[in-house]
Order: sequence, then structure tokens, then C-alpha cells
Amino acid sequence: MKPTAVNLARELARFDDLWAQRTIAGLNDYQVKLAKVKGEFVWHTHHDTDELFLVIAGRLTIQLRDGDVTLGAGELFVVPRGVEHCPVADEETHILLVEPAGVINTGDAGGPLTKAAEPLG
Amino acid sequence: MKPTAVNLARELARFDDLWAQRTIAGLNDYQVKLAKVKGEFVWHTHHDTDELFLVIAGRLTIQLRDGDVTLGAGELFVVPRGVEHCPVADEETHILLVEPAGVINTGDAGGPLTKAAEPLG
Repeated sequence: MKPTAVNLARELARFDDLWAQRTIAGLNDYQVKLAKVKGEFVWHTHHDTDELFLVIAGRLTIQLRDGDVTLGAGELFVVPRGVEHCPVADEETHILLVEPAGVINTGDAGGPLTKAAEPLG
Repeated sequence: MKPTAVNLARELARFDDLWAQRTIAGLNDYQVKLAKVKGEFVWHTHHDTDELFLVIAGRLTIQLRDGDVTLGAGELFVVPRGVEHCPVADEETHILLVEPAGVINTGDAGGPLTKAAEPLG
């Protein structure tokens, strides 16, 4: 198969549902995922892994019990494993995530927003 | 310590040397790194890991023995482990890399461009 680049804007244009993660690349046993988010997610913790958030467009606040981190486009933050967090975005915001394959988006919290990461296709 | 965002543009403004990788974040045992590149690197292989390239600004061609992949801003490519590659950029290009900590930039090739990833600071 001819190797091809993954264009983030093009992949983002292929879906509209909020908080659902799309897997766009694999890196060893890690996955690179895209998501569109708006509103408040749910407080949750990933006990086994750090989680990288990179904002592509918009503005994301990652609420933490020790204070909030707000990311604009071109800004990233790694939520350390075991740290409870709750993302929130006032406007529709597009993010790239990197974390090990199989991480559940809602971590230990469960609930209606829980979704497996879907491959784009 | 108050959690803070990592601003890619601000971190890129802090160094000028080409091909030297700066570590800007850790993700479990992975590192997120920035580099400024121009010209041709060296053909090399990472036998133990995939390597993610995301172009932030400019244009990067990753030469592969099976064909080239050219990335503009907002495009990424994962070089699979064991696949020989040689990045080249006609203009100064800014890239973000994600790979396990300790990966040597020149892989199995060695030579004068070999550098350990340096922390920003």
C-alpha cells in the first residue's frame, strides 16, 4: 500500500458527533485519535495511563482538582495517570489525543458518554 | 506545581538549531518532541519502534524505499518500525514527534547528525 499522509482537517470533516473518538493512526500500541467536543464531559480518571490532549481548533479547558488548564489551538497538555479530570469546551473544539490503545474515554466513571474509539472509515 | 499548557509556537521560538530534538512533554514512557529541520537528514531505521511525525509549519518529505510521503502543516505520518526512512525539507519546517523515550534520532545509522533529545529549559 502506498504510504500516505493523514490530513487532520480532512479527517475531522468526516464526522460530526461530539465526544466520539476516531482513531486516525497507530503508534506501536498507542493510538492517535481525533474528537470534536462541546459542553462538559464527565469527571473521570485513567488509573493506568497518561493522556495527551492537543487542541487543533477552538478552546478546551481541562478541569483538574488542583486547577484548570485552558488550551487554545496549538497547545497541548498531558493529564498524568491517576489524576481526575473533566474536559469542557464552550465552543465546538477539535482535539487530537494520544494514549495507549483500548483506553476508555470515560475512564473509571462510565455513564452515557462512554464510547469505544472508532476507526475512521 | 500549577498545571500549565505547552504552547508549541512558544517552545519552537526557544531554539534555532536544526535537527536537534527538544522534549516538551512526557506521556508514560513516550516523549513528545519538537524539531526544526531543513535539508536532508540521513537514511536510517528504528528497529524497535514506530515514529510519529506531525508537521506544524512548512513541508516535510519522508523518503521511504517504497515511495515518498509529503506532509504539509496539519498532516501526520507514522513510520513503521523497521522501515528505512530519510526526512528532507526544502524550507525550514517545524515538526512534532512522538516516540518512546530514548530513541536515537539517527536510528541505526549513527553519524554526525546523531543527537540525544534535549529537554527544553
